[in-house]
Amino acid sequence: MPPQKTIGALLFDRFELLDVFGPLEAWGILASSGAYRVVTTAENAGPVASSHGPRAVADYGLADCPPLDVVLVPGGVGTRQEGANEVLLEWLRQRSAMAQVVTSVCTGSALLARAGLLEGRRATSNKAVFRWVASTGTNVTWVPEARWVEDGPFFTSSGVSAGIDMTLAAIAKLEGREAADQIAQRMEYAWHDDASWDPFAKLYDLV
Amino acid sequence: MPPQKTIGALLFDRFELLDVFGPLEAWGILASSGAYRVVTTAENAGPVASSHGPRAVADYGLADCPPLDVVLVPGGVGTRQEGANEVLLEWLRQRSAMAQVVTSVCTGSALLARAGLLEGRRATSNKAVFRWVASTGTNVTWVPEARWVEDGPFFTSSGVSAGIDMTLAAIAKLEGREAADQIAQRMEYAWHDDASWDPFAKLYDLV
Repeated sequence: MPPQKTIGALLFDRFELLDVFGPLEAWGILASSGAYRVVTTAENAGPVASSHGPRAVADYGLADCPPLDVVLVPGGVGTRQEGANEVLLEWLRQRSAMAQVVTSVCTGSALLARAGLLEGRRATSNKAVFRWVASTGTNVTWVPEARWVEDGPFFTSSGVSAGIDMTLAAIAKLEGREAADQIAQRMEYAWHDDASWDPFAKLYDLV
Repeated sequence: MPPQKTIGALLFDRFELLDVFGPLEAWGILASSGAYRVVTTAENAGPVASSHGPRAVADYGLADCPPLDVVLVPGGVGTRQEGANEVLLEWLRQRSAMAQVVTSVCTGSALLARAGLLEGRRATSNKAVFRWVASTGTNVTWVPEARWVEDGPFFTSSGVSAGIDMTLAAIAKLEGREAADQIAQRMEYAWHDDASWDPFAKLYDLV
């Protein structure tokens, strides 16, 4: 049996709830087979407050987080502050170099950009604050109309609920389309499986 | 200015992540106006483990939870055990009598049924375990093909991701359709706003 893989979700003060727990629902169902496990991590282990108030618990501090095969970087208003947090950005650089897949939801791609990880790559983000995110990484081809963008190991998604669609695509890449479809069914979720599907970009005059 | 209303999400051991945090994302955006606040509660305040492992923090124990205008009851494998937890069932009875809206996601409707709250009412639930849920409340009209069912103050939804669609419907009832549409847009979510939309019931030979 191959060794168990680890999916790690990054938490920080004022993270966006669904950015974390939409993807972790899908990864969690995958993990129930035993081939994966899900952990959470933040600068310090313990409770972390979301942008809407409810708190999640970070299982590990960044320094003692186990090796990660999949990294999940959420968005939320906290990304404005964390974009200047060199400890967190250096953690992203180190962990991305070792991970099989690095995913972001919403303004989480601003953190990847601030860390320099999207240099020369294509990426997307939340549509309401797209112009701000695009300013965080200038040598990046920011794609305004996309549900998610895959470039190498990086899967960046649009706002909030788009993280679920992106995660299913990442699961399909790692474990096959059938696994992703089964998880979507378990979630009773109508997967938008076309990465170019994006009815929201035009609402903000991005296309 | 009217008094601030409180939305309370119930947590228990092995709750389903997206059942809680899909709805709380939508309620949380609504709450950012200041007219609402979001709290979490469990039998005891503190960390509560989800079915997939990641933990959330209950702000309050059931006994000291503030009055709730909106109650959210998630599903998850933990509902099997909690269906026999008389402390939790009695809390549901008392809080449902005082709330404006009582919502459930997935197998959360089994807890409402065990508490006797769905007697004589229409309700729905997760499709994969629909027959088990239907056995938890016999004087209930269980609707197999529905994204969610509204009956009086009760909004019961189908599995996992259906909670988001149901929550937007509850928000539309409380605050109007435009408010719900704006929240869906903020979430970049294509709301399935038709309560009868349910492509999953037929996958389990329920229709």
